[in-house]
Amino acid sequence: MTAPTYPTVRLRPKAEARAIRHGFPWIYSDELVTDRRTQALDPGALAVLEDADRRPLGLVTVNLRSRIIARMLDRDPEAVLDERWFSERLIRALALRDTLYDAPFYRLVHAEADGLPGVVIDRFGDVAVVQPNAAWAEAHLEPLVAALVAVTGVTTVVKNGSGRARGLEGLAEETLVLRGAVSGPVPVPMNGATYMADLLGGQKTGLFFDQRPNHAFAARLGRGQSVLDVFSHVGGFGLAALAAGARTALAVDASAAALDLAVQGAGLMGASDRFSTRQGDAFAVLEALAEEEARFGLVVCDPPAFAPAKPALEAGLRAYERVARLAAPLVAPGGFLVLCSCSHAVDLSAFRNASARGIGRGGRRSQILHTGFAGPDHPVLPQLAEGGYLKTLAFRLDG
Amino acid sequence: MTAPTYPTVRLRPKAEARAIRHGFPWIYSDELVTDRRTQALDPGALAVLEDADRRPLGLVTVNLRSRIIARMLDRDPEAVLDERWFSERLIRALALRDTLYDAPFYRLVHAEADGLPGVVIDRFGDVAVVQPNAAWAEAHLEPLVAALVAVTGVTTVVKNGSGRARGLEGLAEETLVLRGAVSGPVPVPMNGATYMADLLGGQKTGLFFDQRPNHAFAARLGRGQSVLDVFSHVGGFGLAALAAGARTALAVDASAAALDLAVQGAGLMGASDRFSTRQGDAFAVLEALAEEEARFGLVVCDPPAFAPAKPALEAGLRAYERVARLAAPLVAPGGFLVLCSCSHAVDLSAFRNASARGIGRGGRRSQILHTGFAGPDHPVLPQLAEGGYLKTLAFRLDG
Repeated sequence: MTAPTYPTVRLRPKAEARAIRHGFPWIYSDELVTDRRTQALDPGALAVLEDADRRPLGLVTVNLRSRIIARMLDRDPEAVLDERWFSERLIRALALRDTLYDAPFYRLVHAEADGLPGVVIDRFGDVAVVQPNAAWAEAHLEPLVAALVAVTGVTTVVKNGSGRARGLEGLAEETLVLRGAVSGPVPVPMNGATYMADLLGGQKTGLFFDQRPNHAFAARLGRGQSVLDVFSHVGGFGLAALAAGARTALAVDASAAALDLAVQGAGLMGASDRFSTRQGDAFAVLEALAEEEARFGLVVCDPPAFAPAKPALEAGLRAYERVARLAAPLVAPGGFLVLCSCSHAVDLSAFRNASARGIGRGGRRSQILHTGFAGPDHPVLPQLAEGGYLKTLAFRLDG
Repeated sequence: MTAPTYPTVRLRPKAEARAIRHGFPWIYSDELVTDRRTQALDPGALAVLEDADRRPLGLVTVNLRSRIIARMLDRDPEAVLDERWFSERLIRALALRDTLYDAPFYRLVHAEADGLPGVVIDRFGDVAVVQPNAAWAEAHLEPLVAALVAVTGVTTVVKNGSGRARGLEGLAEETLVLRGAVSGPVPVPMNGATYMADLLGGQKTGLFFDQRPNHAFAARLGRGQSVLDVFSHVGGFGLAALAAGARTALAVDASAAALDLAVQGAGLMGASDRFSTRQGDAFAVLEALAEEEARFGLVVCDPPAFAPAKPALEAGLRAYERVARLAAPLVAPGGFLVLCSCSHAVDLSAFRNASARGIGRGGRRSQILHTGFAGPDHPVLPQLAEGGYLKTLAFRLDG
């Protein structure tokens, strides 16, 4: 196969060609010469990136609407994005997950770090859910899916096109079954629990694998205890705690559909008698439980991103503080409080401070036992590691 | 018992009384009125701390030689540091470890966060090793040890007085058996491995419990692999990897005595045939292994603190970079590299950058899989959490 002829884009003289040569995968809009030819490129177009001295740096995908105007796809400027190209990346991604996990339930591809910018693939046994959140990936979906089936042996492939990023890339929202068929929610084993994942109608790809190590840590704290799992989704922390020996778990979520899946999961675990749910606004339920003077050995709050981006930072931090303030009084003396943030814009230090302040305003003192991030099936490039989105803190409160 | 009459020390008007009221446990030297009476206090003296308006804040221990001139012991200014006082703290500390671990091998007291500033107690089954690294604790060693025996049931108590902090407190170096007797190294089960801890002659308290969760994570990566464990001490990462199914482990350390303990541990595990050691300077051994073109599926480097304090920061970062640069070429294609820092002065971001730079200079590209800290038997106060000393990063290198 002869290499296609890609258009060329060029770095400005002052751009950080050295960082890019050393593996930094992004080019910001003020680093690229945006002449008329470059401006004519469609979102997701492939191009050869050159430095200011016209030396090729690699093959990139260009999106003029984004602050990250280009993303590195391959150091080889003549790379061809065919099934073989995707297979090489997927084989490498799969080898890591095979090392990490005994069963094929995990995030298989986590974007940049797995060599596929903007692409997320979650695997649920024989089913894979692909999020092609970048125009280049949407355009190459066929060879990607062909490689995915060949490398992993999955029989069903779902395309989930509901990500916020897609609008920026000029992509429509749509969810399709591309291979095989999906008949109802899929049971997912994790940390000894069973979760029901709705791969067509659920949030994101139907289940969040990222909290796996934090579920495991919190579950240990909940052994023999009553557990309150707020923002529970399909039972994340609560079912893990039941699997580890919690006495009871109460799951709170605004979504009746998510709680119904949690109830199904508890049923499959034979834990229905120890599991209950309360549907409603989490803040309102926390306040109601305080009125009732309810106390739990372990309280977990894993809310949606209160500050997904910088402009929401202040309001987001206030929301995290409020969660901590409302949750702390519900923790029994000497019990545990686990607080999570999946906000990109909130760094660990800011989240820890907001949480500690909230606990203090809730009338409690605390120790921090554990600081956790997303599990290892969510790898990050060292150059982008500062922005790790998920932080989980486990506190022990005073006696 | 009537309360003793403690001397009084007073905050300057500008001091952060509010932070102290909200749980901040330290008073810096520029925050305290240091009149002649205060200057006459011996290191470790107990005193009632008052705010600038003469309202009592609690009972503190004072050390005029330290930048942290006073540390909060009790919010009750009339507290008496008798056996009962120590028992209350130890019962609370023990309850946490009982939740966390199935066997009594752990850090039982981790200073401030467990309510005992400057005091570290590690437990090895029936033996406890106490480090009273503060003058107030040295002065109250008898009620502390009596409470320790009563609360935990340990039969042997060792005082390990070799910490760097002791000089600052005006304390002599000495290691004594205070209760019971120690006859040779003690076998310690952790993560399925067996470590031999020398509680009288070893480093610190004879074994480092802090890496437990990171040992477990790395051990998973090493299953079926050849493992190189550099700065191995008594076999920390290497024996954990063997327990998890590593094919072989090679431990490198400058201390022949530590490696001898590692060999004993491997023997008790029935893993002698899979374990080998190389005694020598770690940098020299890394270079020699590169000469030999040795390759390992997993390489771990867990060096002593290269930058224990700020003045050593630059040299420390260069040393961490050098470790990464020398270790990266020894990792097989697609294999794993685990790098650790226990330097207080090096924060996570600086350590990650130095490590990534070193890996790059060693000719490799990487993903980060895992960022870990000290285990939960090393709790921290939220107010002091910024300074977490131990960081462990797990990288996967390119294929």
